[in-house]
Amino acid sequence: MSTFGEFFRVHTYGESHCRSVGCIVDGCPPGMELTEDDIQPQMTRRRPGQSNITTPRNEKDRVLIQSGTEFGVTLGTPIGMMVLNEDQRPKDYGNSTMDMYPRPSHADWTYLEKYGVKASSGGGRSSARETIGRVAAGAIAEKYLRLAYGVEIVAFVSDVGHISLCPPTAEHPSPSTNPSFLSLIQTIDRPTVDSFLPVRCPDASVSQTMVDLISSFRDSHDSIGGVVTCVIRNVPSGLGEPCFDKLEAKLAHAMLSIPATKGFDIGSGFGGVQIPGSVHNDPFVAANQPDQPIPPAVAESGAARSGIPRPKLTTKTNFSGGIQGGISNGAPIYFRVAFKAPATIGQDQTTATYDGEKEGVLAAKGRHDPCVVPRAVPIVEAMAALVIMDAVLAQQARHTAKSLLPPLRQTLNSVKPAGNGVTEDTGKA
Amino acid sequence: MSTFGEFFRVHTYGESHCRSVGCIVDGCPPGMELTEDDIQPQMTRRRPGQSNITTPRNEKDRVLIQSGTEFGVTLGTPIGMMVLNEDQRPKDYGNSTMDMYPRPSHADWTYLEKYGVKASSGGGRSSARETIGRVAAGAIAEKYLRLAYGVEIVAFVSDVGHISLCPPTAEHPSPSTNPSFLSLIQTIDRPTVDSFLPVRCPDASVSQTMVDLISSFRDSHDSIGGVVTCVIRNVPSGLGEPCFDKLEAKLAHAMLSIPATKGFDIGSGFGGVQIPGSVHNDPFVAANQPDQPIPPAVAESGAARSGIPRPKLTTKTNFSGGIQGGISNGAPIYFRVAFKAPATIGQDQTTATYDGEKEGVLAAKGRHDPCVVPRAVPIVEAMAALVIMDAVLAQQARHTAKSLLPPLRQTLNSVKPAGNGVTEDTGKA
Amino acid sequence: MSTFGEFFRVHTYGESHCRSVGCIVDGCPPGMELTEDDIQPQMTRRRPGQSNITTPRNEKDRVLIQSGTEFGVTLGTPIGMMVLNEDQRPKDYGNSTMDMYPRPSHADWTYLEKYGVKASSGGGRSSARETIGRVAAGAIAEKYLRLAYGVEIVAFVSDVGHISLCPPTAEHPSPSTNPSFLSLIQTIDRPTVDSFLPVRCPDASVSQTMVDLISSFRDSHDSIGGVVTCVIRNVPSGLGEPCFDKLEAKLAHAMLSIPATKGFDIGSGFGGVQIPGSVHNDPFVAANQPDQPIPPAVAESGAARSGIPRPKLTTKTNFSGGIQGGISNGAPIYFRVAFKAPATIGQDQTTATYDGEKEGVLAAKGRHDPCVVPRAVPIVEAMAALVIMDAVLAQQARHTAKSLLPPLRQTLNSVKPAGNGVTEDTGKA
Amino acid sequence: MSTFGEFFRVHTYGESHCRSVGCIVDGCPPGMELTEDDIQPQMTRRRPGQSNITTPRNEKDRVLIQSGTEFGVTLGTPIGMMVLNEDQRPKDYGNSTMDMYPRPSHADWTYLEKYGVKASSGGGRSSARETIGRVAAGAIAEKYLRLAYGVEIVAFVSDVGHISLCPPTAEHPSPSTNPSFLSLIQTIDRPTVDSFLPVRCPDASVSQTMVDLISSFRDSHDSIGGVVTCVIRNVPSGLGEPCFDKLEAKLAHAMLSIPATKGFDIGSGFGGVQIPGSVHNDPFVAANQPDQPIPPAVAESGAARSGIPRPKLTTKTNFSGGIQGGISNGAPIYFRVAFKAPATIGQDQTTATYDGEKEGVLAAKGRHDPCVVPRAVPIVEAMAALVIMDAVLAQQARHTAKSLLPPLRQTLNSVKPAGNGVTEDTGKA
Repeated sequence: MSTFGEFFRVHTYGESHCRSVGCIVDGCPPGMELTEDDIQPQMTRRRPGQSNITTPRNEKDRVLIQSGTEFGVTLGTPIGMMVLNEDQRPKDYGNSTMDMYPRPSHADWTYLEKYGVKASSGGGRSSARETIGRVAAGAIAEKYLRLAYGVEIVAFVSDVGHISLCPPTAEHPSPSTNPSFLSLIQTIDRPTVDSFLPVRCPDASVSQTMVDLISSFRDSHDSIGGVVTCVIRNVPSGLGEPCFDKLEAKLAHAMLSIPATKGFDIGSGFGGVQIPGSVHNDPFVAANQPDQPIPPAVAESGAARSGIPRPKLTTKTNFSGGIQGGISNGAPIYFRVAFKAPATIGQDQTTATYDGEKEGVLAAKGRHDPCVVPRAVPIVEAMAALVIMDAVLAQQARHTAKSLLPPLRQTLNSVKPAGNGVTEDTGKA
Repeated sequence: MSTFGEFFRVHTYGESHCRSVGCIVDGCPPGMELTEDDIQPQMTRRRPGQSNITTPRNEKDRVLIQSGTEFGVTLGTPIGMMVLNEDQRPKDYGNSTMDMYPRPSHADWTYLEKYGVKASSGGGRSSARETIGRVAAGAIAEKYLRLAYGVEIVAFVSDVGHISLCPPTAEHPSPSTNPSFLSLIQTIDRPTVDSFLPVRCPDASVSQTMVDLISSFRDSHDSIGGVVTCVIRNVPSGLGEPCFDKLEAKLAHAMLSIPATKGFDIGSGFGGVQIPGSVHNDPFVAANQPDQPIPPAVAESGAARSGIPRPKLTTKTNFSGGIQGGISNGAPIYFRVAFKAPATIGQDQTTATYDGEKEGVLAAKGRHDPCVVPRAVPIVEAMAALVIMDAVLAQQARHTAKSLLPPLRQTLNSVKPAGNGVTEDTGKA
Repeated sequence: MSTFGEFFRVHTYGESHCRSVGCIVDGCPPGMELTEDDIQPQMTRRRPGQSNITTPRNEKDRVLIQSGTEFGVTLGTPIGMMVLNEDQRPKDYGNSTMDMYPRPSHADWTYLEKYGVKASSGGGRSSARETIGRVAAGAIAEKYLRLAYGVEIVAFVSDVGHISLCPPTAEHPSPSTNPSFLSLIQTIDRPTVDSFLPVRCPDASVSQTMVDLISSFRDSHDSIGGVVTCVIRNVPSGLGEPCFDKLEAKLAHAMLSIPATKGFDIGSGFGGVQIPGSVHNDPFVAANQPDQPIPPAVAESGAARSGIPRPKLTTKTNFSGGIQGGISNGAPIYFRVAFKAPATIGQDQTTATYDGEKEGVLAAKGRHDPCVVPRAVPIVEAMAALVIMDAVLAQQARHTAKSLLPPLRQTLNSVKPAGNGVTEDTGKA
Repeated sequence: MSTFGEFFRVHTYGESHCRSVGCIVDGCPPGMELTEDDIQPQMTRRRPGQSNITTPRNEKDRVLIQSGTEFGVTLGTPIGMMVLNEDQRPKDYGNSTMDMYPRPSHADWTYLEKYGVKASSGGGRSSARETIGRVAAGAIAEKYLRLAYGVEIVAFVSDVGHISLCPPTAEHPSPSTNPSFLSLIQTIDRPTVDSFLPVRCPDASVSQTMVDLISSFRDSHDSIGGVVTCVIRNVPSGLGEPCFDKLEAKLAHAMLSIPATKGFDIGSGFGGVQIPGSVHNDPFVAANQPDQPIPPAVAESGAARSGIPRPKLTTKTNFSGGIQGGISNGAPIYFRVAFKAPATIGQDQTTATYDGEKEGVLAAKGRHDPCVVPRAVPIVEAMAALVIMDAVLAQQARHTAKSLLPPLRQTLNSVKPAGNGVTEDTGKA
């Protein structure tokens, strides 16, 4: 089903060649100021044609809110949104020999296996246009999260092919131990990321190397993959639902649902398997120290205005990536998403016909995007926003429900005379 | 919510110190022979205490079916299953100084942040005992998949710390191009994996190195992470739901919901971002060639008995990892899951009290498991089975619904005189 | 959430004064011929202004398919549909004194209590325009059900005020024992119902009395309620999910979700509580007797074409209303839905201001519909179609899943020498 | 699927002859005191054998909490509950001729049609034992609702056969206009209801007539139906989700999911269709008048303690039954549920064999319950509690989410100089 989320629920529709693509967002809190101007910027960041190394098409992608707001304020009812398709003519199958060959590593063949009907656009819903609804919905979620908690979500390109912003080293098998990486995710913002267009990798030198690499793939009619890294700051603690809907599980689900993704890791990630527990464990320290000023976005948030207390603890290191036991601990959440090289290339490809009877050569022609990761940045941000928004509403519900119960007897003996403060870990795991 | 799946739905319950842990499996097809003997083997493989490098506790973990079967046959109604907890006494908070300090990188603190109630076992549902319900449910799914389609799911340990069965090289940045890896996933089975106990890494030499590494961590009261690799063979084509519930997205969700996981990648994975599209694209070739005998498990399956046709195509390479556009193409699905070092270690740890007022030393004592990946093998298999089962039921429903519609006019012109077989790829992506 | 259904899922959006109203239908089987022409007829039957006793507005309500079909065939992907709102200008609150008083028995006040935001149209989504999405989606479901199984769904007006087509009598407290009612539901079709416009009560004499009654309420600027009765014929057996999603429970849910409904009963219904068990029990008899010809719609259905066997049994009487233990038995399903008098009337009403500070008179003006039940007929049919469609897909999934399992040993000893055929009922209930 | 609810989710399992029946309750707020003593009373009220006119079996039905609480306090994690079955031996099919005949109006035949497997208990999950999980879960919901809001849920028997506590009359076609009924639902409580055991109809004279009627049916080995009326007091306003999950729609769903139910109506109900809109509209009046003391249960509730404001309006009449536009308005919610005569009777019944080949006589023997409505009282209460609980959590989530947004400009002009207080109703419906 084309639905994402439980509490903040997004339903999308649309293929490449139908009248429109769009979505319904169900569960948006009422009383939030919202117009198309809140949504369009991320739509525009997602658009092809932003440079000469991305696809040269110039789609318009103007979003139109259909329902759920009035006088620029959300009503709490479903928000319908749509973007018209400019090319609405499905191809007549009889006119193209492309009908004979499923394109390698596209979804043409698997969609036919699944539905038994061949759509004009091949893998109907697998088109990148499908991500429009995600980005529109994500922009709404993001606005709420910013207003209510000061949440900041920033993604950037960290790898293109073998070029990496923070390559693993013997000393730092995982970026979690790399001071320059840790510093970057504390401060990076979207204007900075976009100042490194066309690749959105926030380092002048690495960025230029990536441009050169992508250009060389473009010139050889080939394509290349990359990695988008994303950080979410100022996340409330307590988000994520045991056991199956751990916060990292939902993030993984969200990210691997983006077309062309092949991997996800969080915190210390794959590199972290090499780090001993004695190093990898994140010791707790008191939060809210005098030398840690409250970030402005947090200070101005609804949570601050409502006097919601901030967590008393944080962690000294952050191998966990802001999530422990599937639940956010308030530290920055950071993760990486791997994107494969785009399947559409400007080269002849030998492959087989749909019926498997014949082998032949599928000759590519026309525009293609040699590397999708720069455009994937706002999509990763949108999906991250949808996950966090859903988890926020779930946790708000639980917290409020609890608040109406009579106070309990003390369940945590926090002021015992503990001698030297040494206690025992029974190791039940 | 503690529910996984849409069509084959698993609900779990239980903490470490309550009466029992268990689950309800809803949506199991009726008419399948099923007794506890089908479930217990995977339960036993999951159990601690299988060697001297895993935790020495000897849990019993006998599963008891409560409902949903009669005379050893499933009724189609919910299958209740339970495993009694042997140690049902929650700790009295007053008796332990451990109450003062949340254990680093455990879920003690985040659970308290989430629920506002401190469970005796710290991070209540984050205990490894919670995985019992998953393994029990997975065993049922697995049996159906085997009977109906000949599906084979085999996981094994591929990495412990820096020791890797298939380390990335300049030539093979991803295992997808490594012939020995590709050969392994075609043939590996569970008896072979278990013959490499205690680490379940199917290579005598690598396995021994891993044992030595884990032993050294055990001896230094430390712990280490690892990677479990899993392959799913004989998967029907057409599984996976656009757009949000792509098959790899559900697998990622499932795997990252297992305690202690930090990453997931599929097919070419993270290494694959370095592979050009011209190489990474998987050309189609005719399936079912005379020199490719039908696997026995498939030949004996219900699908074969029912005359369900097998896909006409397969791919020459398998960078896609068996999934294209979010939908299975019938080729083997393989993926990797990263596990961090266990948080429970036999060392003193400096950390802060729950209220953040004080820093102190939490001294560990007692048993601990220096590396969880060998025990994680059946859990990864179980979660994989749940994902595939759910997708199978969804696709069966769609296929059957379609089969009752009147036949359509021809929508695929597959026999056009295509000259030299060259066609155009318009590159809409 | 504005979602109905599990397998055939409808999401709706839209208020009275926004750009459009519409829906996304997710889960429609691929390969079905579908154009707007399949949907518009029920949209038109729902439209106001069909006679001088219904509201005189002449809405256009042209449905536009946005996605999910190509060349008039469903792709299996989400079907987006929309109907433009002609009056898209939300009222400026400052210009109307109506803002002071919530209209009695409208949703103005409860929506404000719920959302804390006052929509221009008062009870935002409670407008009758919201039913457009239901009717559009229902038309798709209905087409599938007809093609696949020959299902026929026909609703009609059975009561207006105290005028009843089949009033309860001492002999017939429930219509289930009334031969003329039972005959009617076997044969009634939509052309016949519409031949009794404007009230859609299929009896010339009763219909005229109803017209007169509604006219008198219109003339006195008042309104009146009524009952819609609906029959579903040729339903496959086996539909409905224990325990919470019994087929009648889903029907009740669907019907009570229609604006202005106050009651639902099925089969013998409320009148049936007076019928002793010895009468109310429906004895089984062999189905498919030579004197019971297969209905043409069934004979031409996909199920017949596919050789799906029809049930061997039916019931002699049908107090059960076609559902036993929550599961359809193949006999006609019939139920009644009570609609209250419309809240919009052409009379002054004394009521209180939103803040409760003041009492005053809300004077009504303009158009109103004195009785909604004639227009409710296609809405009831649509919701019935959605329920049956969802249950059909669920049952198809289960049946197909089972069909791939190995055959079981005999579990039903149906040919025992039973002497006189007398057996014992142990009375476990 | 055997799941009820979205936010407060109940999953049940169990047949008559398996090891146990039970449920998992997911979504219970953490921090609530809860032991088996909170649950057992309703379990006991549900039990058979409470008088000589109900079934004489004496089931034990002791509920055991498996998980989700510690030291008598909910953890917020899933609460597993079970009740052992005393008779766990499924019948051997070969030993009984009952296997030949499906019992009329039981679920034996429809379950076989659905699942293709014949359970020993006939209609497996349709047994009344299935309601145990509902009652256990409902008791938890009820406790929360009482603590948090002072919600009171009381059901009673209002009709047995043709005997009615408030029979419709020409003056009062609906109980909504009957002063004695309206007074009753304001005050009735469970001790009073139980003081009228065995029938639980709170009127000495009517109750005795009902006892006599049931006794006569028992003596003639027959059975009879009845109606349970239920009132929910002190419901917060704002509950219910447009459009498909209107509060009355969820109640209807819940009630029609109880075995043997045939109808549901709310507020004015079926009788209300005869009431003109000018009467049926419920005028608003100021709530919280000095002469309306706050009910003690409300005054002591968590909502009162938290200073949550009570609605400023209520309605003078209550034809709406406490719900308008699908959303609760704070007035008492009252509804009726029709139960048919039990299918198990002590008489011979002529019916057909499963295969339809033969007609014969199924002779009943053994215990049976001539009227189920007295035992249905706690089941109706439980299902009502589940519906309200789910709606409460949904609304709490929305309200809290909104509370963190910045304040809006004024959207409701409530203090305009409105002259004579007359305004216009534009009649958009």
